[in-house]
Amino acid sequence: MYNLLNGLSVIEASSFVASPTAGLYLAQMGAEVIRVDQIGGGPDFRRWPVTEANDSLYWENLNRAKKSVALDLGSPQGRELLQELVRKTGQFVTNFPAEGFLSYAKLAEGRADLITVRVMGWADGSPALDYTVNNSVGYPMMTGAGPEPVNHVLPAWDLLTGAYAAFAMLAAVQKRATTGEGLEVRIPLSDVAIGTVANLGGIAEVLYTGANRPRLGNAVYGLFGRDFVTADGVRTMIVVVTPRQWANLITALKLENAVAALEAERGVSFAKDDGLRFNHRDALYPLFGAAIAARSHADLAAAFDAGGIVHSAYRTMLDAANDPALVANNPVFGAAANPSGFDYPAAGSFATVPQLDRQAPQPAPRNGANSEEILAERLGLSSGAIAALIDSGTVGRG
Amino acid sequence: MYNLLNGLSVIEASSFVASPTAGLYLAQMGAEVIRVDQIGGGPDFRRWPVTEANDSLYWENLNRAKKSVALDLGSPQGRELLQELVRKTGQFVTNFPAEGFLSYAKLAEGRADLITVRVMGWADGSPALDYTVNNSVGYPMMTGAGPEPVNHVLPAWDLLTGAYAAFAMLAAVQKRATTGEGLEVRIPLSDVAIGTVANLGGIAEVLYTGANRPRLGNAVYGLFGRDFVTADGVRTMIVVVTPRQWANLITALKLENAVAALEAERGVSFAKDDGLRFNHRDALYPLFGAAIAARSHADLAAAFDAGGIVHSAYRTMLDAANDPALVANNPVFGAAANPSGFDYPAAGSFATVPQLDRQAPQPAPRNGANSEEILAERLGLSSGAIAALIDSGTVGRG
Repeated sequence: MYNLLNGLSVIEASSFVASPTAGLYLAQMGAEVIRVDQIGGGPDFRRWPVTEANDSLYWENLNRAKKSVALDLGSPQGRELLQELVRKTGQFVTNFPAEGFLSYAKLAEGRADLITVRVMGWADGSPALDYTVNNSVGYPMMTGAGPEPVNHVLPAWDLLTGAYAAFAMLAAVQKRATTGEGLEVRIPLSDVAIGTVANLGGIAEVLYTGANRPRLGNAVYGLFGRDFVTADGVRTMIVVVTPRQWANLITALKLENAVAALEAERGVSFAKDDGLRFNHRDALYPLFGAAIAARSHADLAAAFDAGGIVHSAYRTMLDAANDPALVANNPVFGAAANPSGFDYPAAGSFATVPQLDRQAPQPAPRNGANSEEILAERLGLSSGAIAALIDSGTVGRG
Repeated sequence: MYNLLNGLSVIEASSFVASPTAGLYLAQMGAEVIRVDQIGGGPDFRRWPVTEANDSLYWENLNRAKKSVALDLGSPQGRELLQELVRKTGQFVTNFPAEGFLSYAKLAEGRADLITVRVMGWADGSPALDYTVNNSVGYPMMTGAGPEPVNHVLPAWDLLTGAYAAFAMLAAVQKRATTGEGLEVRIPLSDVAIGTVANLGGIAEVLYTGANRPRLGNAVYGLFGRDFVTADGVRTMIVVVTPRQWANLITALKLENAVAALEAERGVSFAKDDGLRFNHRDALYPLFGAAIAARSHADLAAAFDAGGIVHSAYRTMLDAANDPALVANNPVFGAAANPSGFDYPAAGSFATVPQLDRQAPQPAPRNGANSEEILAERLGLSSGAIAALIDSGTVGRG
């Protein structure tokens, strides 16, 4: 937690990953993020992983440092309360449909300078999820050894969309500061996916070659990079991106003569050309693989570290969670009293600002924990009016 | 391209994916982003995919809408010019080492309110890349059918880091507007990766269960979602995240009786519980798989679309590039005169702002294309002084 965004308040009405991470990133940088959910929780409130008591470990991590207002969003009165919260606040992040009761036109009726950042599925408003835009742009057909497509497990498109949405919110705030005008920023998962294919040169590549890139398993395209297995059976990823790393890798593996012989035989120099190292991988990978297979991981890791060579062993998520450098001793993590009651290291902002004190990560709120406070403060409702809304089932409290 | 960030100027000294995408996202939202590179190009200037003339289709897409200044960054004079450009500009995005000639302390000597966003590998400054942080946090061990780990092809950590870096730049600018103070925001790939594991509930999950999640192949954890194959051999991903989608999927596949029988047999109701659908996937997937295998993709797609069911067929990147809805007819794409000379649809901002006119995507600059203009305007150098720097090999021009 850092206080870079103090003074910014955002209403979030969302579920799943993309839109909630936008709110999370804003909250972890100091914005007040008020998540408004159906009383009892929205469609993501019990999403797995869950505890034995069915508390979602997913939900309580994606919603840290936010406040929670619970409303009956199926009722006209609950919907009006959410609309009014958005209007009074002026900043809104959502993945609700573009043309429903949370349409920009409806919300801006009472707040001309409203900023809405709307995460969408397909750009035309039809539904899509991370896992369906992913296979529609081709990555599963390029992943793994083949021939079957392999889905990613990390919801990469959701995450990229969430971070981009947080960025877009601040860009829109900056624009409004100069013009006074509100606007809606729509970010469809499908455009993030196909736009990223384009940004990485993928559209250009397939149209230039007229063909799909061949599957490469765990090798990286266009450079020297692959998984290898050490003498003691540790699988490790090694990637070379600079001439110095290449030279140091050859030295660390004592392959000077072998590589020089290969260069002479093929009439090339690998010293400064990623592409040549890739083109001649039929000879290079067996050579390096044999040298790596002859030594222990500890021995190699020390030599690689000394040479600034980028490498890392494959491990499981449980191994990672128990790595002190990554988690227990990492200032990004701290303690927080989670709604589930289960104690574990809680993450704060990815970013570190050396000039500022990092504040402890905050827990996610219980559903409706801040309903009374926010309805009073933001909408000016009296305690009697709020009590009546609670009694009628329009408002929930944590 | 949108003009949300007009008036913001950023120096970018970077390579590969994460830091350049931060600059790209800022530029596509209207910031002036001046990429400073080694004369002739940095370490990513020839990165694959490349044309037959060795022009990088990767580089020219990750650097659209930027300006380019080329300097000899190996020389003291070239380094001083970059330092001065950063100081005069006040905003800097980089993945150069934290403790070199571009350290925050050095740069802030002449510019106390400097904002630097620094993408790093490991938080301690040691080198890491997308493909090595990925296997260190466990995702490849969860991906695919097993038993071998499967690397992702999409550089997801780089992309997330880049978007988060663009967000962090705007957050820091907003903070500075209130305090007048500069700061450095450090974003290590390793913290983005382990922090994301935490945000998605992964740290909590493995510490709660004491075990790693089993591999699920192309199935999604904790809900009904998997790839299926239609009667005409189309592999399609189907994911259910709402009760309505579940009900409509059953109707579309005419499985009302079969699902009711299974619910009776097992004493459960799948209507509102993602977790139960996941727990009973041993029975549900064969049932749905058989119903899907009996019908054509066109028939099913029409029924699914009518029911708001989230689905999409697997296809290749070439298929995606040739899909008019995704590319040729998508307003995100437009024409741009690329440095490679190859014409293809160029992507603009992922975001769409209905209230504003979208401007055409811009091409990437040639190396050094803007050296003279920027050195004159930003540093106040005379044309004679610039000519001397070009003659001495300190400055390059495109």
